[in-house]
Amino acid sequence: MQLFYGHIEGTEFHLDAGEIQHCVKVLRKSVGDHIHFITGDGALYEGEISFVSKSKVYGLFTEVEHEFGKVPYNLTVAIAPTKSMDRIEAFVEKAVEMGISRIIPIICEHSERRTIKTDRLSKIALSATKQSLKGALVHIDEAISFQDFLAQKQEQLMIAHCEYDETKKGIHEVLNPSRPLCIMIGPEGDFSPTEVLAATSAGAKPIHLGSSRLRTETAGLVAVATVYHLLG
Amino acid sequence: MQLFYGHIEGTEFHLDAGEIQHCVKVLRKSVGDHIHFITGDGALYEGEISFVSKSKVYGLFTEVEHEFGKVPYNLTVAIAPTKSMDRIEAFVEKAVEMGISRIIPIICEHSERRTIKTDRLSKIALSATKQSLKGALVHIDEAISFQDFLAQKQEQLMIAHCEYDETKKGIHEVLNPSRPLCIMIGPEGDFSPTEVLAATSAGAKPIHLGSSRLRTETAGLVAVATVYHLLG
Repeated sequence: MQLFYGHIEGTEFHLDAGEIQHCVKVLRKSVGDHIHFITGDGALYEGEISFVSKSKVYGLFTEVEHEFGKVPYNLTVAIAPTKSMDRIEAFVEKAVEMGISRIIPIICEHSERRTIKTDRLSKIALSATKQSLKGALVHIDEAISFQDFLAQKQEQLMIAHCEYDETKKGIHEVLNPSRPLCIMIGPEGDFSPTEVLAATSAGAKPIHLGSSRLRTETAGLVAVATVYHLLG
Repeated sequence: MQLFYGHIEGTEFHLDAGEIQHCVKVLRKSVGDHIHFITGDGALYEGEISFVSKSKVYGLFTEVEHEFGKVPYNLTVAIAPTKSMDRIEAFVEKAVEMGISRIIPIICEHSERRTIKTDRLSKIALSATKQSLKGALVHIDEAISFQDFLAQKQEQLMIAHCEYDETKKGIHEVLNPSRPLCIMIGPEGDFSPTEVLAATSAGAKPIHLGSSRLRTETAGLVAVATVYHLLG
């Protein structure tokens, strides 16, 4: 199924500007054709095109499926952006494909990258949402500092850090499956001891992601894949 | 810990040609310095450098740790190379970080990419092996056809396909944790019905990887992450 991204107003839909060329030039859709689209609100829609030009495609729509492709859990990952943008981009794409609700870039004491363009990550997330047949857009927050993130007081917070700590457990050992979940993943140089202490003092459960030493984005993917396996 | 790749002969080690510049020019190691290296045989070694030139670094070594970074399972993934090389490269890197023994590129009926440069994948695997502190090299096979792969008769074979099949189960439901395991991941257009039938007739268990529609390399990563979670 080919999915487009669009917007709705009353009983009309219009495709997003970024979709027009693909719809009209590449796929040669025209008046009377039926297409499937999402708006990011979670549903799948079907529309019949009633107008096509170089800059606009619109028509009437019907909702087809509520909670389209929804995974049965609510997962946020707060992750330190990697030095190489490719790596965090790969994380975003694959996390969205599996199923995630929100991604929060956090700037930590050991972060080499201290700024990040979230509009590019949002585009990658939208593309992966369509590719993996899901109706809800993943929210990519603007980057915030570790301290500001902790002040947000996430529900069921877990911190995956690499320091030796015999109280660390696997996700499956501490997970409450019925509550929203937020997992923190540190930068290339790990969370600092001060950050680990601040997080656990704020109620975050220290977790490990198995015995292998993982890169930041791989750790993020393992966390998402584990929740997807346990609750998906 | 900085790990190098080297070779041993008797009581001497010599660094691999690809490591010399990094060791000598970047890290400025010289005679008398101690370094850690792997040879791919599974162990971690420590060596004392006794000779340094532009093209050679060698010395005497001692074995430090047997089965260094070894995961407690034996996983092979037979995966159709993706159209974009970046995607299969990302799979190889992250699969090695988590822990995998062997990767077999298989050329399927729906494969868009029908050849693949395995030397580049082997380099990426070596780099990820060092990065994730493991001693055993992951074997990257030359690409073979789906039929030739099936003729190899892998132990505990599973096939992750997307066709509707109510007998498909999750990995955890069919896994025998004490036996080596081989999971087959299809190309962008999935395995063909003929291939699925051939595989299941040959004893492969049909499995699903959750409810999300996943790209080839993401499916591969989910398979590896699931085994890593269950047995790692």
